[in-house]
Amino acid sequence: MLYWFDLIGVGVFAVSGALAAMQAGLDLFGLLVLASVTAIGGGTLRDLLLNRHPLFWMKDSGYMAVIVACALLTAAIGQLSPSAMQALRIADALGLALFALIGVEVAENAGLRRVPALLMGTMTASGGGVVRDVLSGQVPLLLRRDIYATAAIAGIVLYQLLRAAGLPRNAAFVVGLVCAAGLRLAAIAYDWQLPSPRLVQ
Amino acid sequence: MLYWFDLIGVGVFAVSGALAAMQAGLDLFGLLVLASVTAIGGGTLRDLLLNRHPLFWMKDSGYMAVIVACALLTAAIGQLSPSAMQALRIADALGLALFALIGVEVAENAGLRRVPALLMGTMTASGGGVVRDVLSGQVPLLLRRDIYATAAIAGIVLYQLLRAAGLPRNAAFVVGLVCAAGLRLAAIAYDWQLPSPRLVQ
Amino acid sequence: MLYWFDLIGVGVFAVSGALAAMQAGLDLFGLLVLASVTAIGGGTLRDLLLNRHPLFWMKDSGYMAVIVACALLTAAIGQLSPSAMQALRIADALGLALFALIGVEVAENAGLRRVPALLMGTMTASGGGVVRDVLSGQVPLLLRRDIYATAAIAGIVLYQLLRAAGLPRNAAFVVGLVCAAGLRLAAIAYDWQLPSPRLVQ
Repeated sequence: MLYWFDLIGVGVFAVSGALAAMQAGLDLFGLLVLASVTAIGGGTLRDLLLNRHPLFWMKDSGYMAVIVACALLTAAIGQLSPSAMQALRIADALGLALFALIGVEVAENAGLRRVPALLMGTMTASGGGVVRDVLSGQVPLLLRRDIYATAAIAGIVLYQLLRAAGLPRNAAFVVGLVCAAGLRLAAIAYDWQLPSPRLVQ
Repeated sequence: MLYWFDLIGVGVFAVSGALAAMQAGLDLFGLLVLASVTAIGGGTLRDLLLNRHPLFWMKDSGYMAVIVACALLTAAIGQLSPSAMQALRIADALGLALFALIGVEVAENAGLRRVPALLMGTMTASGGGVVRDVLSGQVPLLLRRDIYATAAIAGIVLYQLLRAAGLPRNAAFVVGLVCAAGLRLAAIAYDWQLPSPRLVQ
Repeated sequence: MLYWFDLIGVGVFAVSGALAAMQAGLDLFGLLVLASVTAIGGGTLRDLLLNRHPLFWMKDSGYMAVIVACALLTAAIGQLSPSAMQALRIADALGLALFALIGVEVAENAGLRRVPALLMGTMTASGGGVVRDVLSGQVPLLLRRDIYATAAIAGIVLYQLLRAAGLPRNAAFVVGLVCAAGLRLAAIAYDWQLPSPRLVQ
């Protein structure tokens, strides 16, 4: 069941990559590249840093199939209605939360301590978005504004606290997931921002 | 013999990196960095993802020697005559095709299935050019326009089809190579482009 | 003792990353990311290319603790007095030299030959700064101007020559360190630049 959620997360991130490619004026090949790096870039970076081989998308053709299908469909439609954009934002929040929690569990299974595992979870959730923005010539949005990766961090920390308090893994996973997704959706609804420290002149 | 062709491909890509560095106003160190990442960036990325160690350019000093020589020579000349640019474009098409076919064979030998192997071949051929453009502050040209990576993909797919049809490896390799290089050269000659999907407003 | 110097180098690079993040208008999360990649990006890239796992900052919590503390302190202060900037530049030159020499020793221990080891040392010293600039939307400064990575290269080459001449490792290390740091500081003091090869029109 987690596998199917994972594929949905990959599909949502692929759509977001394809939309960014159309905005940046890339061609069809660029669109497929941007959809792929957005969808599997974070997990790939995590697996490289953890030395987990072969990479998940090399073992299982489902990932690439979902990415190509979602990217081409997005290109064919060429626009998203306001209600589709709304649904995409909610799906993206769920994908973010899911990738964060999957990432921290993968890191735990690889024997990492808490802080590096937190980093790995955050990177799984947000690394693809960073590469997407670098490739389309932008300073990554999620480094500049919005409670995005921070929502992932909050969900992971809650998960780690609950685990340390003795909660079973599945329960902690679900609570962390709801926390991360909820915080992300609340940040969109109320336009919450992190402070941007400035240089005092 | 393949080894010598490989070195020629590396040299051609190093020249292309050095030219990009001069256009971006980099200094001599930046020029060497850009020549190197263009020439061996794609293969390095492929080997990292496939967990092939030690990396090819760590085992064999020939690669770095060719890169440094080609980069410094390009910097010393400081311009390319129109006929030299023409020769460079043809050599670049051959390098693209060669790297694509070498990349897919390396991936096959590592036990990859067809779709991931296709990705690895494409990445070997075009990854260095993407990093070159990111480092010189541009949205990668090959994500925006031109039949470039797409020519590599076509050659690889043809190679895979011929192999599946029972053709011996060497024959499929040569046919794929000619297809990729020929398609790239035709795309230059006739200014073929991929469609760029746009957002409908 | 080397370990403590290493942590100081990490802290200095984290401050430099945090300052770049404030200049680029990133938020608090972006500031932590930029501080981290500047401080441990070069070493991480080196260890990935050399297949050294687990990564140094996964094994030892000291690195992340120093990075977060230095980054938050920089954000809280929000400016550096001219004398603090002066001290930072000197500390940065020492960090550059230290990372270069540590990097080349790590590469030697991994069995690399001289030229790849030189590349690994240079990458350890300057890779983090390149990623920092790419993420903040700039063509990396150290590819464009200043004797920066070149000072690291000079120190490493001197170290390698002294080792080849039979000098003990520690002595060669210290001489290389002084050479790299001294050259960097002299380049700042006298505004030395590398030539920037241009395209002849």
